[in-house]
Amino acid sequence: MPGNDDDRVLAIGVVESPLRHRTDAPRQPGEGAPAAWLAIDPTYADALDGLEPGTRIVVLTWLHLADRSTLLVYPRDDRSRPLTGVFATRSPDRPNPIGLHTVTVLERDGCRLRVDALEAVDGTPVVDLKIAI
Amino acid sequence: MPGNDDDRVLAIGVVESPLRHRTDAPRQPGEGAPAAWLAIDPTYADALDGLEPGTRIVVLTWLHLADRSTLLVYPRDDRSRPLTGVFATRSPDRPNPIGLHTVTVLERDGCRLRVDALEAVDGTPVVDLKIAI
Repeated sequence: MPGNDDDRVLAIGVVESPLRHRTDAPRQPGEGAPAAWLAIDPTYADALDGLEPGTRIVVLTWLHLADRSTLLVYPRDDRSRPLTGVFATRSPDRPNPIGLHTVTVLERDGCRLRVDALEAVDGTPVVDLKIAI
Repeated sequence: MPGNDDDRVLAIGVVESPLRHRTDAPRQPGEGAPAAWLAIDPTYADALDGLEPGTRIVVLTWLHLADRSTLLVYPRDDRSRPLTGVFATRSPDRPNPIGLHTVTVLERDGCRLRVDALEAVDGTPVVDLKIAI
């Protein structure tokens, strides 16, 4: 990619969650992640048009606490399992620490969206939202 | 995010596809996208460990031809539909032009993965791979 700002990821918002530490975050969906708020920057208000309660969306986050140099991990931190390439896992540690979360919008308050089960710690930057298909 | 290289997206590889122009690319999955190769940089060879033919994966791309200033679009370029916020669509035009593609690995040749139906043009940077769940 060119050596300019075209390759910079923008934070479009931030996760507000009771999860405070990375070790609090479940490693797989369905393991009990709590509801969270996505506080979207009002700059992007128009881009939220059409997102209402009940909408199923994909949230992409930038897992800012991740280690971008990690290429091999024990899946789910289980050392009885073989070391596996990060691209064959959902580990947050990877060259581009993008988190992928499929959630349902529970509530909308202006540029703030409340979503169900989101496994990302408080303060995690949000980088994209898409309709789930 | 901090004003340093922590917010730069790295190309981990590139899409090799018969799709040459953005208008060639189907706008939704299932609309006939062709198979493609993901040519992953050998720097990341270890990270591919565990990805074999038959594995269902999520490919994240950086849609380098997209317009990052677009906030409202006509869904699927259909002007009979109401203008909709990009976060409620799958438009490539959005503040962070990350493409999300769920595909099956058909073949692996070292750091090259052949995958089924991928709606991204030739030369699109690949930024992440994850196991699909």
